[in-house]
Amino acid sequence: MPETLALPSASDFHIHLRQDDLMNMVVPRIAEGGVSLCYVMPNLKPPITSTEKALIYKAQLEKLEPNVTFLMSLYLCTDLTPDEIRKAKTNGIIGVKSYPRGVTTNSDSGIESYTVYYPVFKAMEEVGMILNLHGEIPSDIENDICVMNAEEKFLIHLKKLHNDFPKLKIVLEHATTKAAVETVKSLGETVGCTITIHHLQLIVDDWAGQCHNFCKPVAKFPHDRKALRHPRFFLGTDSAPHPAHLKECAQACAGVFTTPLTLPYLATIFESFNALHMLKLFACENGKKFYDVKEEEGKCHEIKLIKETWSVPNSYSFGDKETKIGIVIPFWAGKTLTWKIDSNE
Amino acid sequence: MPETLALPSASDFHIHLRQDDLMNMVVPRIAEGGVSLCYVMPNLKPPITSTEKALIYKAQLEKLEPNVTFLMSLYLCTDLTPDEIRKAKTNGIIGVKSYPRGVTTNSDSGIESYTVYYPVFKAMEEVGMILNLHGEIPSDIENDICVMNAEEKFLIHLKKLHNDFPKLKIVLEHATTKAAVETVKSLGETVGCTITIHHLQLIVDDWAGQCHNFCKPVAKFPHDRKALRHPRFFLGTDSAPHPAHLKECAQACAGVFTTPLTLPYLATIFESFNALHMLKLFACENGKKFYDVKEEEGKCHEIKLIKETWSVPNSYSFGDKETKIGIVIPFWAGKTLTWKIDSNE
Repeated sequence: MPETLALPSASDFHIHLRQDDLMNMVVPRIAEGGVSLCYVMPNLKPPITSTEKALIYKAQLEKLEPNVTFLMSLYLCTDLTPDEIRKAKTNGIIGVKSYPRGVTTNSDSGIESYTVYYPVFKAMEEVGMILNLHGEIPSDIENDICVMNAEEKFLIHLKKLHNDFPKLKIVLEHATTKAAVETVKSLGETVGCTITIHHLQLIVDDWAGQCHNFCKPVAKFPHDRKALRHPRFFLGTDSAPHPAHLKECAQACAGVFTTPLTLPYLATIFESFNALHMLKLFACENGKKFYDVKEEEGKCHEIKLIKETWSVPNSYSFGDKETKIGIVIPFWAGKTLTWKIDSNE
Repeated sequence: MPETLALPSASDFHIHLRQDDLMNMVVPRIAEGGVSLCYVMPNLKPPITSTEKALIYKAQLEKLEPNVTFLMSLYLCTDLTPDEIRKAKTNGIIGVKSYPRGVTTNSDSGIESYTVYYPVFKAMEEVGMILNLHGEIPSDIENDICVMNAEEKFLIHLKKLHNDFPKLKIVLEHATTKAAVETVKSLGETVGCTITIHHLQLIVDDWAGQCHNFCKPVAKFPHDRKALRHPRFFLGTDSAPHPAHLKECAQACAGVFTTPLTLPYLATIFESFNALHMLKLFACENGKKFYDVKEEEGKCHEIKLIKETWSVPNSYSFGDKETKIGIVIPFWAGKTLTWKIDSNE
């Protein structure tokens, strides 16, 4: 068993960095978790629907953290035109995120049908932009659709999109099911999927009554978790901070916060299923290869982890003296990790 | 559509009445919900494991509410002997409740340790006591068992028990799946099941991040709810009050509180799936017939419901000036009911 582990700093291809006080807390913690490149979700309030808004947000993030490469995305909506796609590409925007309407946090302006977006997808395919899919369909009692099968029932739409746009690179985000993993594997090199840290660990039992493990898509059966634990795919944490009072309440927000401890979580979890040797591919290489992106010069660096037993902090504070102070409860708060970042420069 | 509905006061064959301050709050609300007979769960702290303890508890309940018939149960554990079963029967105790935790100790495959209770079950069969089963096996990642299939995986044990004790009356408590309903229907007249109010309404989506809808067994797929909505069985609410601060927290207690509004909830829900004509059988008749029990004289009375739109209270307080005041959040807090109890005397 190795006592130290050296890796390049990791890439997180699905991260929520929020705005204002939460952003100020989260962004400096990206590097703390051993990550030097991240692909930033556009579901702000209001969502990022234009190149201009994406570049303004990117500048805010870079000002807070000059040592991380921020790759930007747009929020798929009817405002988005093929012209805007070409403009976005020219300005370094990487992809477009599609949210099904109402399925998760800030997705009220998400899509209802993909066909209206076909001209946009055509332009994306031409210029080489990535389509990121939140792969769930809305629950529907009459048709037996609920949070436990919403992803599996979505896969037919993924297949159709890939069939209609075979050269468009599509990422099924935060895959949670064996069915999804198998479908993605069957669709060839232009379709990939991200796997979160928490879905490598949780099953449905873990969010039954446990609001801090509740996210969308929800964690599913043990056999699904097992399928995700073959990390041919790549890391997209979907780390999504919410103030604790919006989690510990009658109707909890969906999201799990993992950003400050990305590599310690992953090393601990990968070791638990004897896959530590796969961590580098999963967290550092596969994603950049799929996206065909390079990090900005000098940002990728070596991370050294050491085998050490320590505890996840109980909370992270945000806000300053003038604003109301809140806390965010991280994934596995108070629980034991077996790997720690020793050097990160 | 009827504007009034007259029913006999209902019977709740699965209720948690707690102790101390919570008991003082809950017990007077049984009648408020239109119920005049209830079968009381023995999982107190410590659990009710003898006739003597059951009779002491029964006296406490009757003192608080002389107008309700309280049927008592014992908690299945290794202290329980065939002699104690015969003593319990003589003293009017109705049945024995089995919780999975009690039967899985020192047993690799959980429920198989029912065999240690076979002498007890034999005595119960002989004297005519009811066996009440919490029908779930423990989650087990290696064997793909989790909260979503724990009931279905239990059914083989139900079948075996029925096969070994064909004359023992067995109730599968709080059935939540189509599989359970179909198994119970297949096993003949000595096997029944209770259905809760909340499982007639909820699916898995409703407890995703919503602690007040979280209970065990968890609500499942829409097709399961549909199967429960054929009310050939009988009411056992599993109403289980917990202080709000033990629900709205990182790890919520399991349980849904429905006691104060039993009949208004049921009339509202039954009407929503056009089964108002079945409510009397489900809530007032089937259970007493299965248990072969009569209410104490003068306790069953007429309840008149009227069609009226009103709201579920946001909370119920418990405790008095000298103790710490707490609240319990009821099922559907703040939501609309369409039926109200008009007279209940």
